[in-house]
Amino acid sequence: MIYCNKERMEEKINTFARFGDTGRGGITRLSLSASALEARQEVLKRCEKLCMDVKMDDMANIYATLKGEEGLPAILMGSHLDSVIRGGNYDGILGVLTALEVIETIVIEKIKHRHPITLVIWTNEEGARFDPAMMSSGVVCQKFDKEKMLKSMDTEGISFEEALEKSGYKGTIDNRMNPKDSLAFLELHIEQGPVLEAEKKDIGIVEGVCGMVNYEFSCYGQADHAGTTPMKYRKDALYAATKVIQYLHDELDCLDNKLVYTTGRIVASPNIHTIIPDEVRFTLDARHQDTKVIDQVVEIINRVPKEVVGCQVKYQELWSRKTVTFHKLYVDYVEKNAKQCGYSAMRIYSGPGHDAQFVSDVVPTTMIFVPSIKGHSHCEKEYTPMENCWKGANVMLQTVLDIDLL
Amino acid sequence: MIYCNKERMEEKINTFARFGDTGRGGITRLSLSASALEARQEVLKRCEKLCMDVKMDDMANIYATLKGEEGLPAILMGSHLDSVIRGGNYDGILGVLTALEVIETIVIEKIKHRHPITLVIWTNEEGARFDPAMMSSGVVCQKFDKEKMLKSMDTEGISFEEALEKSGYKGTIDNRMNPKDSLAFLELHIEQGPVLEAEKKDIGIVEGVCGMVNYEFSCYGQADHAGTTPMKYRKDALYAATKVIQYLHDELDCLDNKLVYTTGRIVASPNIHTIIPDEVRFTLDARHQDTKVIDQVVEIINRVPKEVVGCQVKYQELWSRKTVTFHKLYVDYVEKNAKQCGYSAMRIYSGPGHDAQFVSDVVPTTMIFVPSIKGHSHCEKEYTPMENCWKGANVMLQTVLDIDLL
Repeated sequence: MIYCNKERMEEKINTFARFGDTGRGGITRLSLSASALEARQEVLKRCEKLCMDVKMDDMANIYATLKGEEGLPAILMGSHLDSVIRGGNYDGILGVLTALEVIETIVIEKIKHRHPITLVIWTNEEGARFDPAMMSSGVVCQKFDKEKMLKSMDTEGISFEEALEKSGYKGTIDNRMNPKDSLAFLELHIEQGPVLEAEKKDIGIVEGVCGMVNYEFSCYGQADHAGTTPMKYRKDALYAATKVIQYLHDELDCLDNKLVYTTGRIVASPNIHTIIPDEVRFTLDARHQDTKVIDQVVEIINRVPKEVVGCQVKYQELWSRKTVTFHKLYVDYVEKNAKQCGYSAMRIYSGPGHDAQFVSDVVPTTMIFVPSIKGHSHCEKEYTPMENCWKGANVMLQTVLDIDLL
Repeated sequence: MIYCNKERMEEKINTFARFGDTGRGGITRLSLSASALEARQEVLKRCEKLCMDVKMDDMANIYATLKGEEGLPAILMGSHLDSVIRGGNYDGILGVLTALEVIETIVIEKIKHRHPITLVIWTNEEGARFDPAMMSSGVVCQKFDKEKMLKSMDTEGISFEEALEKSGYKGTIDNRMNPKDSLAFLELHIEQGPVLEAEKKDIGIVEGVCGMVNYEFSCYGQADHAGTTPMKYRKDALYAATKVIQYLHDELDCLDNKLVYTTGRIVASPNIHTIIPDEVRFTLDARHQDTKVIDQVVEIINRVPKEVVGCQVKYQELWSRKTVTFHKLYVDYVEKNAKQCGYSAMRIYSGPGHDAQFVSDVVPTTMIFVPSIKGHSHCEKEYTPMENCWKGANVMLQTVLDIDLL
């Protein structure tokens, strides 16, 4: 079996860590910023060395292709190279560098392949500079309206359209990923959670992306003086919120143990220690791979009483996402290849969203996860050991070669 | 029995509602502001008409005295005329106008009295412009250090000292209330709570001011991704806070039913809907007239577990206040006079603080409460019906006359 080269992999990771280096172990590399453009340039320089053919589409997505037999659809691999503010050196970029290393290995080791193999870089995945996240894969996969996206503004008042024009990376619409010319899309990504590390697994065989619902609850009470209002006359919106959160925990705990749910945001009003709160708003985010479980979550939410400790309780869905299921054959390939390489692996669903979830709608897709130490992500502490990065690249290589046989 | 004059009372309230009028039914009359100085001037004009002798002390507290027999200690009555931002027409000022009306009645009706009768206006009771509240009664009663108070700054960077100098109301230290020359201090105030209205009582016979403790709790968890962290690996600081708040409610509910306790402020961090909170801070304010009950509250707080759902729980006392008990004889006079006037009345403890609680330490003191409709206070909706204001003044008048017989 032919493996990727660990030293080359390490060199790539170290080199790209310089583009947007915060000096504290992480990077700030917002989409289409100067540091992101430097990183793109470095990728293209390397692709050209490997005699790849580079194209850009109208959203500045990059497609760099290693030739295959004429007329056959391509095997696509890739991710994004933008980061959040003070992000890490793995989220997104590791998927790009893995694709590059796989292609480099194929070229250097002169591995025969029939299909064209394409490295893809999706523009503005994080949505940290231009809202929303996964913007450009979303446009290509018909999830978002391009005209709306072009108007998205960063905090300095620069529109995505302006940044696109100025970047020098804007190509043409006919260069977009074309599903009929695409045999597969594969994305390697860090897990962004603690499960693989905790379960001592090298590889996450990603079966899909969890469905999710996100609700906001509002409890309405009466703002009275904390020192003068007897308990029996009170309408304490924070106590009502406490009761509702406890109810949600008690009920949701009875569902499948793979369900995750979180109240991450709570805001009380007027939020003064001597005044009984008259309004408390809080969120509930719930995710699971099985739509039926998400439906059960919604049933539980619908059973929240309209009135709790004298306070009116309301809720609304802020947004939701259906479960995305990846291409079964490719998921099985990942499993088989992890096993053949002698790596420990487990099946897993992604909690966060990825470009692959949009691509999955139009091209057979799967993902490979590698461990995130302590689950750190979107922060400078984000870390995946080199050994794990290399193992991920090896599973990717074998999977590309399997698909090439189709 | 001689009564105060309801029309005169009404005229006073309406006139003083103009000083700082917000145009929406309330006033903004911050301490020593232009509108507060106008109100002072109007009080002094009226005192001079009644041939009262006016003095100011070094904190701009006003003492306006109606002569009595030489050498006898004075009966003091009063309150404050500053308000919070967008406050109402009753908190503080009603105590000043009641004192004025009582003295006016004594003068007009030529009621004989032996003791000098002094109207007192305490500077900066609300603490809304210059922190802390009850500043000037606090200085006179040795609760606060004057030098520190002079340095207190408003939001525009003006010190209390500057405002004092500029006001024209700064007098001398030897004009301060002198306990040996003071037979009584009486303060009428709105209840600022819903009890008198709910219990259909005209008069609150105030026995004292509740003791209180105010604690801040901090729960420390771990900020992980809401979508990737299985429930069993979580340290959710908000869920820990929910559990602690519920524990406090369950335990405190078992204590005396006059105990009031409130979590008015809660702040979660990072407070993002997709991140498990790693720190949640919240307050607990608890008040009761009986020190033993407050001690039980503290015992319950001390039994809060150090760790809840994997999160560390800490707490600290922000401040506390011992119960203040008013002068028993004067409390009884208020009760007797309410009864003799044919008014419904009940004994009550004050939840909020008042100048009277500081004065109580050095001069025999009591308070009279009148109802606050719906308990509204510190807002433009603050309202006490004229009938109730007048009844309060009548009880005050009879109580002054009773004390005059001592």
